[in-house]
Amino acid sequence: MAAENVVEFTDLPVKRPREEEEEEEEQTNGVSNDAVSTLPNDPQYPGISAVIPGWFSEISPMWPGEAHSLKVEKILFQGKSDYQNVMVFQSSTYGKVLVLDGVIQLTERDECAYQEMITHLPLCSISNPKKVLVIGGGDGGVLREVARHASVEKIDICEIDKMVVDVSKQFFPDIAVGFEDPRVTLTVGDGVAFLKNVPEGTYDAVIVDSSDPIGPAQELFEKPFFASVAKALRPGGVVCTQAESIWLHMHIIEDIVANCRQIFKGSINYAWTTVPTYPSGMIGFMLCSTEGPLVDFKHPVNPINENDSQQSRPLKFYNSEIHTAAFCLPSFAKRKIGSKTN
Amino acid sequence: MAAENVVEFTDLPVKRPREEEEEEEEQTNGVSNDAVSTLPNDPQYPGISAVIPGWFSEISPMWPGEAHSLKVEKILFQGKSDYQNVMVFQSSTYGKVLVLDGVIQLTERDECAYQEMITHLPLCSISNPKKVLVIGGGDGGVLREVARHASVEKIDICEIDKMVVDVSKQFFPDIAVGFEDPRVTLTVGDGVAFLKNVPEGTYDAVIVDSSDPIGPAQELFEKPFFASVAKALRPGGVVCTQAESIWLHMHIIEDIVANCRQIFKGSINYAWTTVPTYPSGMIGFMLCSTEGPLVDFKHPVNPINENDSQQSRPLKFYNSEIHTAAFCLPSFAKRKIGSKTN
Repeated sequence: MAAENVVEFTDLPVKRPREEEEEEEEQTNGVSNDAVSTLPNDPQYPGISAVIPGWFSEISPMWPGEAHSLKVEKILFQGKSDYQNVMVFQSSTYGKVLVLDGVIQLTERDECAYQEMITHLPLCSISNPKKVLVIGGGDGGVLREVARHASVEKIDICEIDKMVVDVSKQFFPDIAVGFEDPRVTLTVGDGVAFLKNVPEGTYDAVIVDSSDPIGPAQELFEKPFFASVAKALRPGGVVCTQAESIWLHMHIIEDIVANCRQIFKGSINYAWTTVPTYPSGMIGFMLCSTEGPLVDFKHPVNPINENDSQQSRPLKFYNSEIHTAAFCLPSFAKRKIGSKTN
Repeated sequence: MAAENVVEFTDLPVKRPREEEEEEEEQTNGVSNDAVSTLPNDPQYPGISAVIPGWFSEISPMWPGEAHSLKVEKILFQGKSDYQNVMVFQSSTYGKVLVLDGVIQLTERDECAYQEMITHLPLCSISNPKKVLVIGGGDGGVLREVARHASVEKIDICEIDKMVVDVSKQFFPDIAVGFEDPRVTLTVGDGVAFLKNVPEGTYDAVIVDSSDPIGPAQELFEKPFFASVAKALRPGGVVCTQAESIWLHMHIIEDIVANCRQIFKGSINYAWTTVPTYPSGMIGFMLCSTEGPLVDFKHPVNPINENDSQQSRPLKFYNSEIHTAAFCLPSFAKRKIGSKTN
């Protein structure tokens, strides 16, 4: 299979790397260690919050007062890119785990839920998607899922951090396999800048696979970014963006909904899925369409058969019933955002 | 409001208390402590796994290699009943937390999801429920939810551990409020034994609000217990039982489904809901009906309006759409249990 086309994204303004407090810390890229950090804030492993000896604990001001921890068998990679701390470890029961700035991005055991839902919720909601843009998603999992759609002719991806791509190819071959599809073109660069240069109406679908709105992904939750996405979409085109948890971040979600309501003149919907290793055990998605042919996100018009796509890698999570179910919200969330969606 | 009727359940065989390795440890019931255990397995707090100083960490062989932790503001209660260790603490962001044998049973912040779903999934699936039995559920939350149904005339509850009831009344008044309904009769005793003495066909619905199948709840996952439940139900009566997580315990779930398939001759369905503080962030429910009028669990015939029941305590989580959505399973779970349910 052909390797993907790689565009080094140097001709467009790239967001400046964040000022890091830990600037003086040594980079340990590519170093594999048998020992596991056992001290809190061990400077040898800047990305690990080793508050339980031998365990990785995810502690963040985004979810104060709680932490999910995974037992570490071995730290496989620890590096510091221009944008964030990158870590891969072998967990004892969730397979290999990718961590960015101390936050779990994926585990081999449950990545299927996130990757399949963020991809097929938008792509199964429109007929015949041909051109798809992925912002973020440097691990390749969303690409792997987009590639299941035979109608798709072109898959562009813009990931800001090349280290994420490299690390995924080295440690997560079943996820990074997405890069091997010949329809894929990788641009390493800033998604915000990339979008500004996309000709109007280029894409049928845009998938924003971002980290949380603290760190390099912050701009991906703001109105100018959504306006760029809307412009890049054809009439009746769709966007799906990672949109936090209704249990933890209702205020952020209300802001996202309000921003999208102003920018997208078609449908606006919120969906969610279970992901055990994400905070509160779930993650949400904002799905919007531009003015044009009506999109009814709750009733997929382009079903993907779990048995006839990529027989060697059947869908693990997504199906048409769970697609529709994902839009049903608990009453407390419905009261906050239900009236602002459709 | 009338206090509930209490039956001390001494005339029936009661399961023997477990042999505790920590038998020699002192009971500290009712003692409130400002200090928080900071040492692993601190004998002063037998119920707390204080692997993160100042935090409660939930570590169990039921979910090896992972732990969810909550920051502890203050331990409010620490006791040892005949059946289990009981602890209540004030967390910094999830309100008060009830812990049995080191496992989180509920937090004030997310208890609504579990209590409302385990109750209204069965009760909204049949017309005009009148007699309801709750097994376990000593915190009173399920009673509070059953009481929303105006058709209900009699609510029996059989909880094995009186300490759970007492602790809930003391520390969780918004949950234990369920005991204040005049339709409630509490029996302190073993649910298995209680059921053996229930006249055939007594109840419209049985709700089994049990802890995990390690410890006092073990028998509640076995076939003789399900047979007793079926006998206690009227034709076309329904049972809803806590049934673990599809991410963690598919083998247990497959066993439960197989047992229920043999015992219940009506409908057999599996549903799930998000609960952030349960392992993997979700919990499942087994819903079955006895031979008789057909029950279609996926399409509630007895909707409860979130605005017209108990105006002062509106439903926070349950609604008719999320009822139906709860039965949609991810593909990996559907392949394992979908063909065995209906």
